Amino acid sequence: MTSYDFKVFKGSSSGDIVENTSHRSPLTRDQVYIKITHSGVCGTDEHYRTYDMALGHEGVGIVKAIGPEVTAFKVQVFLLQPRSHLTISRGDRAGWGWVHETCGFCEQCIDGHFIYCTGDIKQYGTSDQDQGSFGEGAVWREQLLFKIPDNLPSDIAAPLMCAGITVWGPLTEYGVKPTDVIGVVGIGGLGHLAVQFANKLGCEVVALSGTETKKDEALKLGAHHFVATKGVSDLKVPRKINHLLVTTNQMLDWNQYKSILAPRASIYPLTTTDFETKLVLPHMQFMLSGWKLIGCTASPKIVYRRMLEFAALHEIKPMVERFPLTKQGVVDSLKKLDEGKMRYRGVLYAEGV
Amino acid sequence: MTSYDFKVFKGSSSGDIVENTSHRSPLTRDQVYIKITHSGVCGTDEHYRTYDMALGHEGVGIVKAIGPEVTAFKVQVFLLQPRSHLTISRGDRAGWGWVHETCGFCEQCIDGHFIYCTGDIKQYGTSDQDQGSFGEGAVWREQLLFKIPDNLPSDIAAPLMCAGITVWGPLTEYGVKPTDVIGVVGIGGLGHLAVQFANKLGCEVVALSGTETKKDEALKLGAHHFVATKGVSDLKVPRKINHLLVTTNQMLDWNQYKSILAPRASIYPLTTTDFETKLVLPHMQFMLSGWKLIGCTASPKIVYRRMLEFAALHEIKPMVERFPLTKQGVVDSLKKLDEGKMRYRGVLYAEGV
Repeated sequence: MTSYDFKVFKGSSSGDIVENTSHRSPLTRDQVYIKITHSGVCGTDEHYRTYDMALGHEGVGIVKAIGPEVTAFKVQVFLLQPRSHLTISRGDRAGWGWVHETCGFCEQCIDGHFIYCTGDIKQYGTSDQDQGSFGEGAVWREQLLFKIPDNLPSDIAAPLMCAGITVWGPLTEYGVKPTDVIGVVGIGGLGHLAVQFANKLGCEVVALSGTETKKDEALKLGAHHFVATKGVSDLKVPRKINHLLVTTNQMLDWNQYKSILAPRASIYPLTTTDFETKLVLPHMQFMLSGWKLIGCTASPKIVYRRMLEFAALHEIKPMVERFPLTKQGVVDSLKKLDEGKMRYRGVLYAEGV
Repeated sequence: MTSYDFKVFKGSSSGDIVENTSHRSPLTRDQVYIKITHSGVCGTDEHYRTYDMALGHEGVGIVKAIGPEVTAFKVQVFLLQPRSHLTISRGDRAGWGWVHETCGFCEQCIDGHFIYCTGDIKQYGTSDQDQGSFGEGAVWREQLLFKIPDNLPSDIAAPLMCAGITVWGPLTEYGVKPTDVIGVVGIGGLGHLAVQFANKLGCEVVALSGTETKKDEALKLGAHHFVATKGVSDLKVPRKINHLLVTTNQMLDWNQYKSILAPRASIYPLTTTDFETKLVLPHMQFMLSGWKLIGCTASPKIVYRRMLEFAALHEIKPMVERFPLTKQGVVDSLKKLDEGKMRYRGVLYAEGV
């Protein structure tokens, strides 16, 4: 029986990235050993950099071994066909995100919303702290692994596992219609994917960013309009926004935004950095405008699958900056992210991939 | 051609209720003259008491005359039937609420959501200030008059036109399922109707009120559980709440409520008194819990109709305190409301009704 030793890159109290080796016993039940080929780099990884834990939660890799109960994933096999043809089937590619495992039996789990599992949930930051997607390999249960479609490259799939699903969920699970106007506040790792998705969903897309620096790229990504917001008290859009995806940490100034939100608009605050921040809304105006504020993080598993299929069909392409999946690559990618210079998602890739 | 003079009860800068006579020219187009028989008394009427305007926006009355283009309402007619039977058809009963008239052509109007009309909207507090439901009569366009079903008494219909629709909308237009748990914060004019509706919709109902004083009545109205909230830091419910209707003006203490809200719960702030109040929410927890904050006021016209039918079918009965539709009745009802003693909705009724 094979056991597994694999390199991981961890945070540390000093903020230095530490290289370490993790170990896993031979696979049991529905465990899957994955050789990691790609990992997205997210702001949350930077957040956990001062924790003694393996970093990374946007992983994609090749299935190298499976436990006895695994049914959905296959490893590489060599088949001797009739007339002595040797066929090699590549191991399936698997991706994973924030959550590793849930109870499967609480109300949220049986309703498909695993992210809100109220039972024994294992997720990035609190569980399995000796493995992440910044590393050579990892062992996960197949429960929350997603098969990557054949026609979707791994470097594209990786950023979809967290940044992608974070914006795809609100765009598909809360009543967005193809005739709606979508506003995307912040053109970064999340926002630049939201613009692409929304465009391909048929929507009219308004990109909102502090300054004009990202205007050309936002329009190329699929935004129909670009609005620079910094210091502008009276924002203007051709048609008012029905769904506003807020991908920045900063609180919106409602006095600035109220004139560009349609009645009954939905607002999705998609990211924040700490537990102290408050959302402050104008009570009366919120009511009278029929606005909705929608908290959402990840989505049911079927929504991940649809996202991957949609991304493949429509050739959604995260704009990525590639870094080697090494200690130096992790350091460099986090530095660039921290400096706000990433355009738009860092992806670590294993050598030879 | 008949013109109309009718008594109205107005607010005034001193807060005194003033009796006045309003005048309307002969009816044109789709105008309807209504003899008012009943009016609910709402907190907003108390709010407008210091304005020089006719009060009241939960009206029900009998259609006494119609303009040449009216199609949906009939006045009282006397029919001489064969064999000299004289049949008298009573005039239709009509109810109305906050909004009197909308443009009919903006995006919100053509989508059915007249309350969010972005065109020329006429509503209580800003338009038609010389007539309201505190009075003998009123002339409205038939556009936003609702026919009262034959089997629904007028004193029951009146409070439904504002208090009723305010809670019926969230209970029927935002995905409530009969198997959901509904929390109703505040057992008053709105809350006591929400409890009845939610019960008849099949839901498990939790009434939440400051003290135990309304417990027995809340349970009789249809609450399955009653929770006294004042000074309790750790609220408890048998099953967590999926939809929380907040019918009080006070801000909720989220630390108090977070443990009784289910993941993905929707929260409906249904009333507030001024434009300064802020809704303050814990950003991270709101996101991670998948909560939704839903602003809603009134609903599309079809939703009013369904509410009236449902109330008739299920014998929903506002608990009302009756006051005569006179200056003294208005003064007395507003006083009782202001003192927090109304159980649970005041209804003014015309003599002889």
